[in-house]
Amino acid sequence: MRNFDQAYSGKVFIASSPSYEESDIVLYGMPMDWTVSFRPGSRFGPGKIREASIGLEEYSPYLDRHLEDVAYHDAGDLLLPFGNPQKSLDMIEQTIDMFLKDGKFPIGLGGEHLVTWPIIKAMSRKYENLAVIHIDAHTDLRTDYEGEELSHSTPIRKACEWLGPENVYSFGIRSGEREEFEYASTSGMHFHRFNVADPLKQELPNLEGRPVYVTIDIDVLDPAYAPGTGTAEAGGITSKELLEAIHFIARSEANVVGADLVEVAPAYDASEKTQIAAAKFIREMILGWPQK
Amino acid sequence: MRNFDQAYSGKVFIASSPSYEESDIVLYGMPMDWTVSFRPGSRFGPGKIREASIGLEEYSPYLDRHLEDVAYHDAGDLLLPFGNPQKSLDMIEQTIDMFLKDGKFPIGLGGEHLVTWPIIKAMSRKYENLAVIHIDAHTDLRTDYEGEELSHSTPIRKACEWLGPENVYSFGIRSGEREEFEYASTSGMHFHRFNVADPLKQELPNLEGRPVYVTIDIDVLDPAYAPGTGTAEAGGITSKELLEAIHFIARSEANVVGADLVEVAPAYDASEKTQIAAAKFIREMILGWPQK
Amino acid sequence: MRNFDQAYSGKVFIASSPSYEESDIVLYGMPMDWTVSFRPGSRFGPGKIREASIGLEEYSPYLDRHLEDVAYHDAGDLLLPFGNPQKSLDMIEQTIDMFLKDGKFPIGLGGEHLVTWPIIKAMSRKYENLAVIHIDAHTDLRTDYEGEELSHSTPIRKACEWLGPENVYSFGIRSGEREEFEYASTSGMHFHRFNVADPLKQELPNLEGRPVYVTIDIDVLDPAYAPGTGTAEAGGITSKELLEAIHFIARSEANVVGADLVEVAPAYDASEKTQIAAAKFIREMILGWPQK
Amino acid sequence: MRNFDQAYSGKVFIASSPSYEESDIVLYGMPMDWTVSFRPGSRFGPGKIREASIGLEEYSPYLDRHLEDVAYHDAGDLLLPFGNPQKSLDMIEQTIDMFLKDGKFPIGLGGEHLVTWPIIKAMSRKYENLAVIHIDAHTDLRTDYEGEELSHSTPIRKACEWLGPENVYSFGIRSGEREEFEYASTSGMHFHRFNVADPLKQELPNLEGRPVYVTIDIDVLDPAYAPGTGTAEAGGITSKELLEAIHFIARSEANVVGADLVEVAPAYDASEKTQIAAAKFIREMILGWPQK
Amino acid sequence: MRNFDQAYSGKVFIASSPSYEESDIVLYGMPMDWTVSFRPGSRFGPGKIREASIGLEEYSPYLDRHLEDVAYHDAGDLLLPFGNPQKSLDMIEQTIDMFLKDGKFPIGLGGEHLVTWPIIKAMSRKYENLAVIHIDAHTDLRTDYEGEELSHSTPIRKACEWLGPENVYSFGIRSGEREEFEYASTSGMHFHRFNVADPLKQELPNLEGRPVYVTIDIDVLDPAYAPGTGTAEAGGITSKELLEAIHFIARSEANVVGADLVEVAPAYDASEKTQIAAAKFIREMILGWPQK
Amino acid sequence: MRNFDQAYSGKVFIASSPSYEESDIVLYGMPMDWTVSFRPGSRFGPGKIREASIGLEEYSPYLDRHLEDVAYHDAGDLLLPFGNPQKSLDMIEQTIDMFLKDGKFPIGLGGEHLVTWPIIKAMSRKYENLAVIHIDAHTDLRTDYEGEELSHSTPIRKACEWLGPENVYSFGIRSGEREEFEYASTSGMHFHRFNVADPLKQELPNLEGRPVYVTIDIDVLDPAYAPGTGTAEAGGITSKELLEAIHFIARSEANVVGADLVEVAPAYDASEKTQIAAAKFIREMILGWPQK
Repeated sequence: MRNFDQAYSGKVFIASSPSYEESDIVLYGMPMDWTVSFRPGSRFGPGKIREASIGLEEYSPYLDRHLEDVAYHDAGDLLLPFGNPQKSLDMIEQTIDMFLKDGKFPIGLGGEHLVTWPIIKAMSRKYENLAVIHIDAHTDLRTDYEGEELSHSTPIRKACEWLGPENVYSFGIRSGEREEFEYASTSGMHFHRFNVADPLKQELPNLEGRPVYVTIDIDVLDPAYAPGTGTAEAGGITSKELLEAIHFIARSEANVVGADLVEVAPAYDASEKTQIAAAKFIREMILGWPQK
Repeated sequence: MRNFDQAYSGKVFIASSPSYEESDIVLYGMPMDWTVSFRPGSRFGPGKIREASIGLEEYSPYLDRHLEDVAYHDAGDLLLPFGNPQKSLDMIEQTIDMFLKDGKFPIGLGGEHLVTWPIIKAMSRKYENLAVIHIDAHTDLRTDYEGEELSHSTPIRKACEWLGPENVYSFGIRSGEREEFEYASTSGMHFHRFNVADPLKQELPNLEGRPVYVTIDIDVLDPAYAPGTGTAEAGGITSKELLEAIHFIARSEANVVGADLVEVAPAYDASEKTQIAAAKFIREMILGWPQK
Repeated sequence: MRNFDQAYSGKVFIASSPSYEESDIVLYGMPMDWTVSFRPGSRFGPGKIREASIGLEEYSPYLDRHLEDVAYHDAGDLLLPFGNPQKSLDMIEQTIDMFLKDGKFPIGLGGEHLVTWPIIKAMSRKYENLAVIHIDAHTDLRTDYEGEELSHSTPIRKACEWLGPENVYSFGIRSGEREEFEYASTSGMHFHRFNVADPLKQELPNLEGRPVYVTIDIDVLDPAYAPGTGTAEAGGITSKELLEAIHFIARSEANVVGADLVEVAPAYDASEKTQIAAAKFIREMILGWPQK
Repeated sequence: MRNFDQAYSGKVFIASSPSYEESDIVLYGMPMDWTVSFRPGSRFGPGKIREASIGLEEYSPYLDRHLEDVAYHDAGDLLLPFGNPQKSLDMIEQTIDMFLKDGKFPIGLGGEHLVTWPIIKAMSRKYENLAVIHIDAHTDLRTDYEGEELSHSTPIRKACEWLGPENVYSFGIRSGEREEFEYASTSGMHFHRFNVADPLKQELPNLEGRPVYVTIDIDVLDPAYAPGTGTAEAGGITSKELLEAIHFIARSEANVVGADLVEVAPAYDASEKTQIAAAKFIREMILGWPQK
Repeated sequence: MRNFDQAYSGKVFIASSPSYEESDIVLYGMPMDWTVSFRPGSRFGPGKIREASIGLEEYSPYLDRHLEDVAYHDAGDLLLPFGNPQKSLDMIEQTIDMFLKDGKFPIGLGGEHLVTWPIIKAMSRKYENLAVIHIDAHTDLRTDYEGEELSHSTPIRKACEWLGPENVYSFGIRSGEREEFEYASTSGMHFHRFNVADPLKQELPNLEGRPVYVTIDIDVLDPAYAPGTGTAEAGGITSKELLEAIHFIARSEANVVGADLVEVAPAYDASEKTQIAAAKFIREMILGWPQK
Repeated sequence: MRNFDQAYSGKVFIASSPSYEESDIVLYGMPMDWTVSFRPGSRFGPGKIREASIGLEEYSPYLDRHLEDVAYHDAGDLLLPFGNPQKSLDMIEQTIDMFLKDGKFPIGLGGEHLVTWPIIKAMSRKYENLAVIHIDAHTDLRTDYEGEELSHSTPIRKACEWLGPENVYSFGIRSGEREEFEYASTSGMHFHRFNVADPLKQELPNLEGRPVYVTIDIDVLDPAYAPGTGTAEAGGITSKELLEAIHFIARSEANVVGADLVEVAPAYDASEKTQIAAAKFIREMILGWPQK
């Protein structure tokens, strides 16, 4: 497959099928962190999540499913051009178009959160009436960052403008500018502060049958659980709550059609606990979400 | 302003007003750790908290307030003489006297917990009937440490003796000597073990209208949340619970007249999560407490 | 005492009595990590737990007991032969036989979890009708690891086969192979997933009056609380919950006759919070469990 | 002064004069790392070098000079737009133009090495016959990095093409592509492998009286001395040799007109030794180079 | 190829040819650390050296050769059974037999130093008159470690006994028991203390035309250069000196027929400088040694 | 022995004799860091040096001596009162008086450098015509630090004033205030900048037969070799050079009568290389210096 490489990857995610063609689910990395406003390093997220996956079991006692029960393929990392955000986003968008044309369920590993923007554009072309579930510490509702429209603080605003704010559901938000919170309150988007599992459980019935793309920023976790991220924010949720949220989605009637997990920046976590947690979330997403 | 310097400071705390004179609130650092009995290094706490503040938003979605809504000034660090506790405490006491004479609401950054002792003396001269809210893992009720009366394990005992134990309210305590717990039980002080938010919520009505000084030792958090402290103690509370406690105080009828946050020792936390959390607590204290 | 040494130990655990003979409880280390399948280093666990104990108080406000109220002795570490599992297990088994012959209550510090296997054999020879409480993230129910029967993933399976699965009670389990979970469900053992304190509270009445050996794998804690372990697994419990579990056992009518705490691997935790927590658990175990 | 800020800075470098106008030398930061091909994080270099400077003496026993003997001002960091290399380079170029118009000797703190390219353009407009001394582990002679012409691996190639390769002197080079080494050998540039002090001593007489810009990449040091850098390369020189090189230049008849020190990436060096060394080099550059 | 896996590997070493059959040189990992007497963790050495190789150029300016000039294949790691030294050594020996039968030049990545013992046995069966060059901080001349004959402190003694001590050349040795140094002095082996490059240069003419196996223990470097090793020993050589030694061998008339680099234990080096250096040594060994 | 404890010690230094009475040499720790002006933490130096000693061999191939050839005893740490410099210094002075009265050769482990001051006073009472060899990065020639006369930057000035500057020999100095360097030049003391081994070799004949006390500040090493220290200073010497200096003294005709090694602050060195080096220096000092 063109444009892919394991440049920063510690091998493939556990139990990956060697065949793209015979797989229903494709895991892929987007090692991009050019636009982040604080601590960079999420380019190494995909590789370290894969490396941490070797410490995982392939079986989930939460879902009673095994990775050999599903057909998934780890395609490696996209070779994104360092320091060129626009070209990077274009490459991501084209890749998702290809995945969708091939009938795949894409699971992306970030990289900074801006990578979600081209994914949503591509997903919305295939899935009419697409909704987005956004789990994050930050609003990501800026129009720009000091003039730059391509910034990791903007993807959800772009999603709101592209899909209509009423189709965007945010959970766990605990940080942003006053203007972003005002937009959240007045735009019509579905916006839940501080907590994830409880409000998600309440919203999920509203998404029954709809195609849903889920984007998780690892910094929704408290820095106790995920110190390895660029913009850590105190007061977050536990790993247990995020697992619970993933399982609520898995057991809901929402039709998840793709997902990503972004902003793992391993350099800030010598204990490796951030990628250890992220690898487990990815396993549960692979096992729980596409099988509808 | 005399005696102040940014010796160990990474600039000023975000959104500090440049003018001491026009500010209602003064943030100041006390980089002292000479008497600690275990791991030193809290002298670097004030500087690292300021440095971490650059990753914070200036707006609080918890309180719906913005730092530009308040008039506060970061005065920098006191130049305390290394290895000379008595002279250091004298300088702190004189500084608080000056702040109070100038009508300021002081918010102190430690440094070891002994710094709270001269502050309480100064506060009690201005505010009759002063009560103290003490949030900490440790009793800090020793009379001395192996003969030394100036020790970071003594400030709350000194406060009890100075103000009367019935005016001191401790929360979250999970460590101390047997004698300290006996004193806590028999002296008449208000003493709450293990938890903070719930017992604080119950006590706050008793403090309605009274002037209250609040001192927070960062080690009340579990080491999962605040490993960067000299005497970490397992079994603590979460960042969420401490934020909740800060907000309970903000919404109470107690008349907070000053506060401090102490014992951040950054060398023991390569992930920087301790100062990231501390900076957020300070922002919430600035936004929530003085505005009565 | 022969075969013991402080090779990797930072002195003895706080407040150890110098006399083995006059002590009821013996603390001892098993610095062995030869069979672990992922990150080694638990050989340094016993020494680092002892070193961290100097930051602890000798008094427990949870149990209102003081280490001087009990007679315990820290015997140091067993000199286990590097890279020779069978000989190491034989030495452990002989040591426990000696402790039990001398009427001691043994508290072991691991080391990898395989060390629990010879202990259980020795304990069961002295205590008829022995039950085991197993608190862990992992099932440890494999028969072998890629052909090796002496592996840190097998001790609970061996215990089930030795004692009968109906005498083994597991708590907090969140990882293992599908076959292990099937064994857990079908063998008749008592098996509780994800949580510890609540199910333990429910099971304890069933153990009234029975001799019980308790083995705790530190990785039952979330990596936020205990990153210093070989096989960290996200989604775990808090230090508070494990303390609660220890106290439930202390207040139960089960007749605890010995215990261990294993898999502390300090190299993966620069903040030292894992051993700080472990030292506190050991203090509570010394104070709470043998005094029946 | 517009466009400057201490965003990532720990205060100013020691002994900075408060006045830009009355200073001969201007220190300034370029916190940019958008185009790096491996480990990012040099955006935090300027701030951490300043922070480390507080541990330095203001007097140099090597040069027998004191910072109060020179008039220098730390202007803070340029506010470069995250993820936008072209605009960032434009801002740097305009800033240098301004410094030179104001008659200042600029000393820049990187940031990635690409920042040197606009500086050289600006310097060459003021100083005819400009020569460049380049001290680095890497050739930095690529024309592009996988198609991107704005890359941290290209600045010296751009300098060669702009000034003529015969005006560029490289020292200490130990890594690059075969094509880069061929260009180095055939283009007419002055190119010295592996060592710095000895070949520099031999070349300096050739630069007598010429205006010289000096650019130092911290990775010329062995990772033992400077682990905190994006692309560490084993086999480098010692801090002593780099100090010696700085002093050779100081004592030569070359007319140094500006300088920079780049690629300090503090996240990869928990011991802080990289910025501690960098701060000392900067002090020696301030004291030794402009005073002709 | 059987028995190989990338279990702990971050992908393959840079520029590996995909074909074992068409390659002259085979790189392979031996992730074993079961018998080490101090800090374990070298099982992760092979994977981390490969991961660090992505930061390397494929061209060596020391040797003016490029990895595409040689035909080498990275076979991944041997799947050695945890905690079973004898079986592990047997697997290594059989693997080398296979490599040699297939006409390959083997380059091994450790893993603890005991892995060299079965390699030497296999090499000596193919190459009559085999000599060994041993570069290390430690003698490794013990007959056993507290009774265990399979220990990482014994491989050179075993080599001396197998090949005759007069065929073993040790360099850089600075630590061992008195008895080992006595054996070194009296047995007839060639034994050089403290330094590597100079004595090696003198000995190499004596090895002209002979088949030579070279084993390098990374701890010959000072801990400043290679802190990531189990038994770090102060007073060692620099990376520059080890590169020089590798190049002396490359330019000598000795007929190198195989090599290894052992004892990289990444957990003790957060800066990653140990594996960064090791990867460079491996590149130079691949480029410089087999091409005779 | 009174006043001693292993409070911060990882056991005793390797091969310590259990008997104070039968030993000629006494090793003791001074865990004091109350007056340091930058990064504290050297209180943990003695314990961590002892802990690192378990990785050392007991035999020195440099001196061909074994620790069992000498009679030395590790007495543990003095229990110095936290935050009380004067009382701490008094306790140290009384201890040395006792050691000297008992005919011991004292080897002290710091702690901050101020501890050397009371030692020199006591030594000079016993040994007429005492000379001091001072190996350090810093002059330590201040009269006071911002008014405090008890500061870790003053002990050598105090020694000069007490013994006469002509009896003090400093080596390796590379940092200090201008006034300190002026004092060094004009006072008559013997003062050698930047290097240690060469100037020491030249001075040693001048000390033939004289009683000499040797004090080594670990920061004379470059931070590459000893990052774990409070005031790291780039441009230092290697471990090899310091070993060479120790051996020059051992082989000289100077009559060494006591020694110390100070300023190891382990918290700033996660790799533990500082204490690993320090333990080796102590072994060589024990083996090489007292045996005249």
